[in-house]
Amino acid sequence: MKLLYPTSLKLDVASFDGFSVALQPYDVKAPIPEEHVDADVLVTWTNSAGNLKDAAARLKNLRWIQSLAAGPNDVLAAGFDTSKITVTTGSGLHDHTVAEHTLGLLLTAARRFYEMRDYQVQSKWPAHLGGPQPDRPAGAFTTLRDARVLIWGFGNIAKALTPHLVGLGAEVRGVARAAGVRNGIQIYGEESLAELLPETDALVLILPGSDSTRHALNADRLKLLPKHAWVVNVGRGTAIDEEALADSLEKREIGGAALDVFEVEPLPESSRLWKAPNVVVSPHAAGGRPQGSEGLIADNLRRFMSSQQLKNVI
Amino acid sequence: MKLLYPTSLKLDVASFDGFSVALQPYDVKAPIPEEHVDADVLVTWTNSAGNLKDAAARLKNLRWIQSLAAGPNDVLAAGFDTSKITVTTGSGLHDHTVAEHTLGLLLTAARRFYEMRDYQVQSKWPAHLGGPQPDRPAGAFTTLRDARVLIWGFGNIAKALTPHLVGLGAEVRGVARAAGVRNGIQIYGEESLAELLPETDALVLILPGSDSTRHALNADRLKLLPKHAWVVNVGRGTAIDEEALADSLEKREIGGAALDVFEVEPLPESSRLWKAPNVVVSPHAAGGRPQGSEGLIADNLRRFMSSQQLKNVI
Repeated sequence: MKLLYPTSLKLDVASFDGFSVALQPYDVKAPIPEEHVDADVLVTWTNSAGNLKDAAARLKNLRWIQSLAAGPNDVLAAGFDTSKITVTTGSGLHDHTVAEHTLGLLLTAARRFYEMRDYQVQSKWPAHLGGPQPDRPAGAFTTLRDARVLIWGFGNIAKALTPHLVGLGAEVRGVARAAGVRNGIQIYGEESLAELLPETDALVLILPGSDSTRHALNADRLKLLPKHAWVVNVGRGTAIDEEALADSLEKREIGGAALDVFEVEPLPESSRLWKAPNVVVSPHAAGGRPQGSEGLIADNLRRFMSSQQLKNVI
Repeated sequence: MKLLYPTSLKLDVASFDGFSVALQPYDVKAPIPEEHVDADVLVTWTNSAGNLKDAAARLKNLRWIQSLAAGPNDVLAAGFDTSKITVTTGSGLHDHTVAEHTLGLLLTAARRFYEMRDYQVQSKWPAHLGGPQPDRPAGAFTTLRDARVLIWGFGNIAKALTPHLVGLGAEVRGVARAAGVRNGIQIYGEESLAELLPETDALVLILPGSDSTRHALNADRLKLLPKHAWVVNVGRGTAIDEEALADSLEKREIGGAALDVFEVEPLPESSRLWKAPNVVVSPHAAGGRPQGSEGLIADNLRRFMSSQQLKNVI
């Protein structure tokens, strides 16, 4: 039995040692060396498309791929025979980093740090953003306190994010396929969006990329948001119709948008989003730093060795 | 008995009604009208210097001033006879707003939202700030997780801030005049700074403005910080020797500085801080929005009427 692990991140290999498995490091940007094409297990992280395509063709013994990405679109697109190979995701490894970044985007929006920056580079004091201010004015998103935050896509990341928002005084609700109460938060089905969106100060999208989520936030739904509402997207760029969003922003029909993901990345220079008012562009920076990979690999390796159900099967 | 309350913020006057006291609104930017110079109590918020100086001369019956500011330097400078007049502060009314802003400044620093903005205005994708990154690299402040945050000045605001930092995984320690454990956080005396500063990823200053805190963070202490450490100041600008700070920043001897307060405000156009590397200039925007003023006024009014000790006596 042989497991190949990537050298594209620092892994404490001792943490998943102890099984009757040969552990071999490999370069994720080059073809797998001939002596390792007999591997049974492949752990992937930021592999090149060429590496994956080559691996799909040459690793005939492969039975399991453990991706460390939350959404391993790269593995799924590489041509592996998924009738024989189990693919497991890195879901859970990015919860903390994405939650922290999302909180930062929400505070950047509420406290208008992006606007302060535009003044700073001109050595100008943005007096209108400082000094005495009305507390929690109606029709403005200026603080998380008493802010109505709607999280669309309520998985592990939302669960990691919610306590911080609640701690800062926000009223958090969720939208997901299945309604109910999760971690103390009321979750509604998508059929409730028409009632929920008009009562939202900040809409946080954490939707996966798939055909069913494509342009989930479209022109019709954007029109349901209050004029001051912010949109924050840390899921997948395809969940937003970017042309419709740019329209809403340019017409000032919503308060702003803090975006970490885009339909095309890097965001093309021609995109209207760069210069639309009240847009914060973050370069897909929320995640990208898996935490606790060794624990997941070790747990799944133990399950694999004992023919138990793996975690995070796609 | 007569109490004058300011019209410079929205107060629910009914919340402090019920005592044998006449409640009168007044304009904080104009002299007190002749018919109200017999007031016993003055509540202040963003009063003009002229209003306060005039009030000090004309309100002969005044026995108590309730400021809604955390540090009522304006009242103290106006010439009131403090041998006869008790001054109470708005300490506690700004905890939430300042804590939220401080958290935003820390996340702006860690996630480099200010640098992203500089790229965005040029329609450029800051690739180096996104995509796969090492998790919690040594010698860099990139996340609050496992970050060593030192809070210098450990009062109400620090107590409000700390749970958010701990929730995000930071290791928080405090510095104050009195050592001990407060709210579960280890507080050290200032004599420990020489050991604490070299072990700090982010130094948060929440010091009041006074002679004893002037230039508390000076050139010698700045030199004790690690090269990647950030300085965040939400207390008073005088607590930092700004020339020494600009030197440290320009020589890249510290990681950066996120500043909401300055020795002179608005920050003069000539200040080196506008353009020093890795500086975030926020225009004294952390507080300025007292929350729960009515509760403090009512509580102190009850105490005043019953000759009990007032809260927040300066």
